[in-house]
Amino acid sequence: MPQGVVEIGKSLDATHTLFKKPRRSNSGQTVFFEKPVHILAGGSVVANREGEGPVGNFFDNVIADHDKEKNFEHAEIRMLKESILHAVQKSGLLLSDIDMLLSGDLLNQITTSNYVARDLGLPYIGLYSACSTMSQALAIGGCFLNAGYFDHVACATVSHFATAERQYRHPLEYGAQRPPYAQWTVTGAGCTVLARDVKATTGSGVRLTSATFGKVVDMGITDVANMGAAMAPAALDTLLALLDDTGYRPEEFDLILTGDLGKLGSDVLRELAAEQGYALGQNYTDCGTLIYDNTQKCYQGGSGAGCSASVFNSYILDRMQEGYYKRVAFLATGALMSPQSCYQGESIPCISHAVVVER
Amino acid sequence: MPQGVVEIGKSLDATHTLFKKPRRSNSGQTVFFEKPVHILAGGSVVANREGEGPVGNFFDNVIADHDKEKNFEHAEIRMLKESILHAVQKSGLLLSDIDMLLSGDLLNQITTSNYVARDLGLPYIGLYSACSTMSQALAIGGCFLNAGYFDHVACATVSHFATAERQYRHPLEYGAQRPPYAQWTVTGAGCTVLARDVKATTGSGVRLTSATFGKVVDMGITDVANMGAAMAPAALDTLLALLDDTGYRPEEFDLILTGDLGKLGSDVLRELAAEQGYALGQNYTDCGTLIYDNTQKCYQGGSGAGCSASVFNSYILDRMQEGYYKRVAFLATGALMSPQSCYQGESIPCISHAVVVER
Repeated sequence: MPQGVVEIGKSLDATHTLFKKPRRSNSGQTVFFEKPVHILAGGSVVANREGEGPVGNFFDNVIADHDKEKNFEHAEIRMLKESILHAVQKSGLLLSDIDMLLSGDLLNQITTSNYVARDLGLPYIGLYSACSTMSQALAIGGCFLNAGYFDHVACATVSHFATAERQYRHPLEYGAQRPPYAQWTVTGAGCTVLARDVKATTGSGVRLTSATFGKVVDMGITDVANMGAAMAPAALDTLLALLDDTGYRPEEFDLILTGDLGKLGSDVLRELAAEQGYALGQNYTDCGTLIYDNTQKCYQGGSGAGCSASVFNSYILDRMQEGYYKRVAFLATGALMSPQSCYQGESIPCISHAVVVER
Repeated sequence: MPQGVVEIGKSLDATHTLFKKPRRSNSGQTVFFEKPVHILAGGSVVANREGEGPVGNFFDNVIADHDKEKNFEHAEIRMLKESILHAVQKSGLLLSDIDMLLSGDLLNQITTSNYVARDLGLPYIGLYSACSTMSQALAIGGCFLNAGYFDHVACATVSHFATAERQYRHPLEYGAQRPPYAQWTVTGAGCTVLARDVKATTGSGVRLTSATFGKVVDMGITDVANMGAAMAPAALDTLLALLDDTGYRPEEFDLILTGDLGKLGSDVLRELAAEQGYALGQNYTDCGTLIYDNTQKCYQGGSGAGCSASVFNSYILDRMQEGYYKRVAFLATGALMSPQSCYQGESIPCISHAVVVER
């Protein structure tokens, strides 16, 4: 009888490999973490504008845009590095306890992450997922720890207003005007330290319980100032997969948190979700709308990989630790175009990766 | 008694969680795949120059640099897409059987991979690891399948001479001269389809047995034409971790294959390895030296993410399937700088990720 074929009438042993297949999701996009993936701590470093915003008191450090550094790129490197060190320190670990750094950023060739990985001397996986890097890193890190490959993984990302503007749009010196539907790239970094195991006395009490990997969604938008509208359909696509796979209804989350859709993009997501029969209520918000207030003249709100990274690793984790939020769906959202692809007439491909975080 | 503490004198049950920790490596960088990670098939598409080289007959398809496409970037997109479709087809699968695409490339914001992920409609993780993308993708894909998260994963990358030259160095129209130690970016793509399970009658008989994640190594080289020398120390660093973790001696591999060090970089690696007491013999070679011959005027040989990707997924996998190579260490190598970071005086950070492939 060929291997793997079960004789009819013969009962299967419960340890048979057929039963060992991990729980699979309907969409195939979700991985369930049946073994604990603990969040030990989050670290966050931002610049002055973010520090003056509504959640400014929750960040670990607020520094000037180019404080003591010779250029904006070096300031970005410093912010990412400091956010990682804050997270490691708050975890009660040493840097040498970190087995793997998962990081990416918005700059060409993710040089910020590369130089930080060099300076910290950690095994390193470079990621590119634009502004959805934070949840992509958490999703991969969760997969690694759930499988027991490592003990501690650091997931991090960063963005910087000045480096992003001159790379993606115009050097600041041009003084180019922005349309009212634009967003403001956050100058900030965030890092989460994940652990496979946790001593009873340490840890934030917060765990990752599943990860949903997104697909690229492109509705044909070509205006690079209109990121929120471009990314909303990608957020919807991943949210629908997450709800279908986990079986949760939207109201069963204390918070559904998208990355950086901004005010306009959030409204678009609400409308798109309503069309699918899901009314997103008061428990839905967006990091881009949380980080600045209306007096700060940031148009539709924050964007950039550092937006969701800094908000998640400060305000959100703090609120979860104190028990205010018990179950959060975190969907960072990314627009994956380059200036070159836009000049060539391509539209903006977008993606959103999601993790469910529970206390 | 606190949880997890074992009473002295009391024997532990073999199923106790203490015994369930997966095998760990000395360096902490290696993950051992104790459950099978099968290579179902490789796909490869290159341009004319690569097709005319020594391993030209092994590629699935040879097309012109910009055959039927309106620009080089679109040709690159087409090559990556075709290499994935070749690999899926040779695996005996449908595209809908692929649960996850792991891909990256050399272009800013890895747009080639993003547009391919959009067009194929697969769940997608974007990676950036320059020319070490192929082994980074295989390493992550192996980790996912060993843990049973997915059934089939496609790992892919691409590079294109014309798109890389104009982004990293000079537009071709300038006719800039190259120093003799330069390499030639390969126009080509490669994809490997990995599977968690395999029917007895299918599959190449080739498996991934471990993955070693690299650290960033930067020896201070700032000349972007001298990639081979910059990357050789990173290849050494990962090779030493791999040998230490797996316990293999270099001569126990039928082939140790680096990504794209080229002739000069390979010589540097041989010297550096000798200093560490490892004489790399006839079983060491480099994809950059395999892909072109001396008559093709490609200086030190091939480079680019597509170099190791196309060679590994054609010649190497074919040779493994026919049993000529039984155990191969594949270490793709990447230089992680950007033109901007080089203009700012930064040196070139490099990385190498490794996988062990066995028949």
